[in-house]
Formats: sequence, C-alpha cells, structure tokens
Amino acid sequence: MLDFDTIAAISTPMGEGAIAIVRLSGDEAFTIANAIFKSPGNKNLLDVPSHTIHYGHIVDPKTDETIEEVMMSVMKGPRTFTREDIVEINCHGGIVSVNRVLQLVLANGARLAEPGEFTKRAFLNGRIDLSQAEAVMDLIRAKTDKAMNVAINQMEGRLSNLIRKLRQEILETLAHVEVNIDYPEYDDVEEMTHSILIEKATKVRDEIAQLLQTSQQGKILREGLATVIVGRPNVGKSSLLNSLVQDTKAIVTDIPGTTRDVIEEYVNVRGVPLRLVDTAGIRETEDIVERIGVERSRQYLKEADLILLVLNFHDDFTEEDERLFEAVKGMDYIVIVNKTDLPQKINLEKVTELAEGHPVVTTSLLREEGIDQLEEAIAALFFEGSVESQDLTYVSNTRHIALLTQAQSSIDEAISGIESGIPIDIVQIDLTRTWELLGEVIGESVHESLIDQLFSQFCLGK
Amino acid sequence: MLDFDTIAAISTPMGEGAIAIVRLSGDEAFTIANAIFKSPGNKNLLDVPSHTIHYGHIVDPKTDETIEEVMMSVMKGPRTFTREDIVEINCHGGIVSVNRVLQLVLANGARLAEPGEFTKRAFLNGRIDLSQAEAVMDLIRAKTDKAMNVAINQMEGRLSNLIRKLRQEILETLAHVEVNIDYPEYDDVEEMTHSILIEKATKVRDEIAQLLQTSQQGKILREGLATVIVGRPNVGKSSLLNSLVQDTKAIVTDIPGTTRDVIEEYVNVRGVPLRLVDTAGIRETEDIVERIGVERSRQYLKEADLILLVLNFHDDFTEEDERLFEAVKGMDYIVIVNKTDLPQKINLEKVTELAEGHPVVTTSLLREEGIDQLEEAIAALFFEGSVESQDLTYVSNTRHIALLTQAQSSIDEAISGIESGIPIDIVQIDLTRTWELLGEVIGESVHESLIDQLFSQFCLGK
Repeated sequence: MLDFDTIAAISTPMGEGAIAIVRLSGDEAFTIANAIFKSPGNKNLLDVPSHTIHYGHIVDPKTDETIEEVMMSVMKGPRTFTREDIVEINCHGGIVSVNRVLQLVLANGARLAEPGEFTKRAFLNGRIDLSQAEAVMDLIRAKTDKAMNVAINQMEGRLSNLIRKLRQEILETLAHVEVNIDYPEYDDVEEMTHSILIEKATKVRDEIAQLLQTSQQGKILREGLATVIVGRPNVGKSSLLNSLVQDTKAIVTDIPGTTRDVIEEYVNVRGVPLRLVDTAGIRETEDIVERIGVERSRQYLKEADLILLVLNFHDDFTEEDERLFEAVKGMDYIVIVNKTDLPQKINLEKVTELAEGHPVVTTSLLREEGIDQLEEAIAALFFEGSVESQDLTYVSNTRHIALLTQAQSSIDEAISGIESGIPIDIVQIDLTRTWELLGEVIGESVHESLIDQLFSQFCLGK
Repeated sequence: MLDFDTIAAISTPMGEGAIAIVRLSGDEAFTIANAIFKSPGNKNLLDVPSHTIHYGHIVDPKTDETIEEVMMSVMKGPRTFTREDIVEINCHGGIVSVNRVLQLVLANGARLAEPGEFTKRAFLNGRIDLSQAEAVMDLIRAKTDKAMNVAINQMEGRLSNLIRKLRQEILETLAHVEVNIDYPEYDDVEEMTHSILIEKATKVRDEIAQLLQTSQQGKILREGLATVIVGRPNVGKSSLLNSLVQDTKAIVTDIPGTTRDVIEEYVNVRGVPLRLVDTAGIRETEDIVERIGVERSRQYLKEADLILLVLNFHDDFTEEDERLFEAVKGMDYIVIVNKTDLPQKINLEKVTELAEGHPVVTTSLLREEGIDQLEEAIAALFFEGSVESQDLTYVSNTRHIALLTQAQSSIDEAISGIESGIPIDIVQIDLTRTWELLGEVIGESVHESLIDQLFSQFCLGK
C-alpha cells in the first residue's frame, strides 16, 4: 500500500438530514479521531477491534467544548473502501455541527480531501481499477434502475474482467510474434505463426466489436434518452407527458440543489430510460417553441435522442405540422396521432407517407388508449423489442467507448498488416498499442494527469 | 420498552453524495436486514456481535439481483438511539440505488417511518425527554455555532435537569400543603407551613423568572436576529453586507433544495447571530424598496429584530432619509453614517437627534474603518456588551417559553393566594398546575396529539 497523508471530508449530501458523516482515511485516522472523542467509558479508539461502532461525544480538546453527540465507526485497513484506516463520524445531521466536526478534524491533523480522493485512494491502493472507480460515480449519478444495474455490474468488475481477458489474449498473440522475431530463420514457424496470429487477433477484434455494440444501449441506459415532445398547441403534449410520467412512475424529478435552465424528468418505459427534456416548459406554456423561441427549440431537437411528434386526429394536417416533420428529418422520432376519441379529420395516409417508415401510433390519451402501443414502439426503436439482458456487460462510459474504438482500429491495422505480409515488428507495434489502449480502460498505463482529472469530477467526500 | 413495529427511512439528505444511509429500527430490524444481505463469508446478521460493521451486498431475495455494495452497521438495543435494534445500511450515495434499497427493506417487512419517528421512539422508550428530543431537531436546524451550543446543552439534558429540580421543589412544597390539609387543627403547623410555603414557592418563581430572562437571548441564539439593511441607493448597503459577511465569515448562505422568496445569510457578529434578510435583493438592485415595493418593505421592517439604517456622510440629509427614520420608529436600529473617506456634508447633530438614543456609528466601509464600532454596537444592543456564558442554560424554544410563562403566573397566583390567606386547597391547585406545566416542557403529562404534532415537524429519517 502506498503512503499517503490522512484526508477528511463530509461524505453525506449537504442539507438538513437525520445523519451526516465526516469520513477520515489514512494512517492518522484513528489518532485524530481519538483526540477529539470522549466516550462514557473513556475508550481509546486505537485499541478497539476493527469494524466496531462507539458512542460518545466530539469534544474540542483545546476548549473542552462539546460539539456533537456521535457514533464512531472504526475500520482498520486494508479491509476498507480505501484499504487505509477509516473512521466515519456519524453525527446528527446539522449543517453547522457537521462543519464544526470537520473543522476540528482538520485542526487536529487531517487534510481536507479533494473531490473523489477517497475513491482515488481505493484505486491507487489497488482495491479497484479505474473502470470500477468510474462505476462508483455512475452509481451515484444513476437516474434509473437500469443505469444503476449497468453501474453495479461495472463496479463488480464485469467490464474489467472482460478487458483483462482481452489483454491476456493479446499478450499471448504477442508471444507468438516474439517467437517469429527471435527465430526468423525457421520458415515453418513463421507460417504457423501467421495463421495463428490472424486467428487470435480476429478473435480479439470481434470481442471488442461485440463490446462496442453494447455502447449505444449502454449510453442510453446510463444517461437516458434525451426525449423531446413537440406538436402544435392543444394537440395533447401535456397529456402525453403526464401519461408517461404517471404510467411509468417518474423515478426522479430533479436533483434538489442543482440549478438548471431546463427541467428534466426521468421515466422508465419498458426498460428504456427516457429523459424528458423541458417538462416544465411543456407544463407551463404547452408550447416549447413559444416559450424558448424557434432557434433554441431547433437546438433542443438536434440534441434529442428521441422525438415524440404529436398530431391532432380531430384536426386537419396543417402547414405547421409539416414544418415539424421537416425539423425532425433524419432523427429518431415517433408520430403520435392523438384524440381518437373525437371524429377523424386528419389524413392518416399522408401522415404515414411523411413519416417515411417511422412508427405512427394513434392514441386517445383522454381514454388512455394506445399508450401500450406507444411504449412498445419506443422499446422496439432502441432495443429492437428485446428486453436487454441482465447479464450483458454494457460499455456506457464515453471514455471507454473512445478507447475501445481506438483499440478496434489499431487491431484492425495489425490484422491487415499480417495479411499483407508487412514486417512482423510493425504488427507488434499495433498489437502493443491495442494492449495499451485496453489497459487505459481499467487504469493501467494511464497518465497521472488523466487520473487527477477523472477523479476531480467526483463529488466531495467520495 | 414499548412494543413497536419495525420502521425504516433514508436518514441522509437527498442528493448526490458519497454516502447514503437507510436506517431500520425495531424488533425485526436484524431479520429484515439479514434477508437482503449477502456477505463474502455468508454472515448471519442475527449472530454477529452488537455495534459491529459488515461488508457485503444488498441482493433482492426474489430476483437474486445485486442492488448495492454496502456496509451494514448492526446495533443491538437498548444501547442505541431509539433503544431498539438498529441497522444502518451504508450505501454509495446514489438517489436511485438508495431508494431501491429502501424499497427492498419495505418489501421485506419494514414500514416507512414518519418524519421524526426514530427520535419519537427514543422519547417513548425513555432514552430522552421531550425537551431533549426538541434539541435534536434544533441541532439539525442550527444556523450558527451559538445556536448549536444552545441545542447541544439542551440535548445533554441541562434544561431538563433544571426543570426536574424545580418540579421536585414544588413537590416538596406540595407535601407541606398536604400536612396542612391533613392536620388543620394544629395552628402552629399552619403558621410554619405558611412561611415555608411562601419561601419555597418564591424560590421556584425566582428560578422560573431567571430562566425566562434567558429566553430573549435564547431565541436570538436559536433563530438569529432578523436583520434588514435599509438606506437610499448608493449609500453603501451592499458594501456593508459584504463587509459583515466577509469579516465575520458567513456560516451558511442558504440551504440547498429549499425554495424561498427571500434569500438569507447568517453571520456571527461577536456571538450575535444575524440573519441578514434579502441579501440577494440588496446585491442585485442595491435597493430593497425598489425591488419589492414599499408595502412589502414595510412588512420586512416590521418583522425585523434589528435594522441597520445606512446614511451617506458625503451627502445632505434628505427627506427620504427622514422617512426611513419614521419607518423604523420604535424598533431596534443602529444608524450607520458611511463614507467618512469623503468630505462631510451630512448634519450629524440632526442624525443623532433623530436617532433618539439609538447608536450612531460612522464608517468608511471602503477603508474598512468603523466596522469594529458597529459590531460592538450590535453586541451591546442584544447582550449588553457581555459575551454570553457557555454555562448558561438558555430557554430558546417558543413552546418552552410559553409553558414557563404560564408556570410563572400560576405560581404567582399560588404565592398571592398564600399571602392573602385563601384556603390552602386552592393554593394546592395552583401549585399542582405549575408542576404540570413544567412537566410539559420535558414531556411528562403531555397529550399524545401534541407529541405527534411536535415530532411531525422533524425531518424524515430522524
């Protein structure tokens, strides 16, 4: 284990709550905690067994002032989150009192932790690799059950194991290359090596490709599909929104304390997490265009993963409708023809024609008809109707996707190199590069500045 | 200990954080926690020692799905916050995952706790009395160090002990009354009783009065002095605000997640916690009146505990200034004549005259001059210059103040009854009433509906 100083931070979200935790990690964690702790039986925290909890008070050793009534959780490394000695001071959840406890801890020798520093230590001390560390943050940020599952799987090391297996295969391939370089005089070795090389490298390439195939779904599961509802006033956008939110139960409306321009609502439609953009706008004015102006609306549409275009069954198809179709051209959209409870006026054939193969669903949101079909259409669009498997390992992180894409093209080059008979030591370079790129996913052969940058995106106290 | 069902709630503030805790309390806490917990060594949480921590995963027993990686804190009653068996499930701080853990706990037999229900159980199970329970909430809501100190003292039972002592004294007094009622034929007993009665009752009354004397300061310490800065545009309101906030270090700006019309900032001026009202308004427009209209401004002024009236040293005294003096008449205010770095134009004698004995301080906020004097004036106004003692027990809670005021008048009646020689059994009624009123402070002889109402003001998970 590496030798670090002792860090401390408030590890619970800021706000009034029942419990707040100040966490310490490092060699001095027990000593510092003990210096500010008084228990009824005058316990010495340096002597208590690991993984035990102790009742007492935080007392300022300088003034003898009682700051808080606490429970101290004492955990001896390496069986801890960071592999270092950890103390968690479990306070009553007041902002002022937990801050005072933190200040006292800092005054007694701890350093304020940087964002993500606890997890960084878990990584640097070898408890978890980089993709697992990233999953910890994904888990915290997860907005839907599915996103959580992807994160949990990754945190448990499923992706890391796959990557390690691939790297091992590349190493074995490289061993064959070595044989070829070391003994170029044996022609039969070279021939055998060539065919084995191609076979092995192709296997790795296919496995990388397979992993990358999960990335679109993985990203959707992780971030949710940015979904925008458009349509003329009064076609039922607001009813559609409510029906989606009610039917599927919104998982989280907004995170308290974060200010945003746009209010988002997360709903889970048959395993597909929709991130409904600007729901407040829809609720308030029934018209996103009116509220935010034409230019910004187009921007929204551009950034959307899915557009729900709502038309009125009981009204003629208008020029405005037609302009909407033009605006969503080339994007993933579903047409919803609403108000089938009223007499038909719209020309459905024209709608189907304009939709150019995109799904067209008729609904009566008033009578709660057609919602099933809409949900099916959404699921089919992104998961081809199949509910995604619990067991599949998804690549969901943009950094991982980029690295895997590079790894894929570098092994592609290696393969075509072998096939075209270029010198084997050039092939070796491409294979080594692939091996390194895969290593970066799990944090081997990663530059320190990247590590710093990755962990700085974490929240404080993690 | 009373017999309750097992309750559960998320006990950390909602939001993205490093740690979130689901807390269970009750007979079934261990059984429920064990049903959804899988540890590497297949530990049985029913068999582990109390006050120990266990690493493992939360797994849905129905689907075998892994929900979270957790640390389980297992604490056997009665050595716990509620005196019942408690399990704290320490999760990675994601909103979705901690919600899933809670849902799983509820699906396996726990009931969602009502706000304050954990503390209510601590009260009902006799671990703390009512004034201590109220202090728990005060501690969580505390905005300044001083408020925290008052809460900690009360939580530690300082107020309760005082109240118990007073009740004991009343009981002894009542015993004398009993003697008098039981043996009315002994004249000398009566006489002796009378003088002892008066002496004892007067002592209790004086102690109640003394306690009530702390209530104004106690309330200020607990809630902060609602402070409003007024003055014409450009006199330096915004500089005054910044200087107070910077100089004394703002303790908390606003609680994230709570939406308010008015933004408040807490600063600590020599032990006096100022709650600076509408700081945003001052910062944005430099003019509270302009921003919120004359009527609402008057309302603000009415509700303020302290007004800082700012004038311009380098300008004539205007009609507007005069109107401000009229508006603050009869209130606690301090006049600040700012910009002494510029040549004097204001008539200071007129200002002093209009201030009618209220403090007048000249400052150059630009040159950071006069701020000490201002802070002294503020401290003197509310604590008569003396720094309040650490050891003093403050009554700060409105409910307690009301009860003590009633107790005081009821013991006053008892005393004047004895003095005017009214039948001793009438005196007995007044004394008993005093005893009961004091009991209500610590939660003895309190109606159940009041208890429900008090605890419902707590936050969830406490």
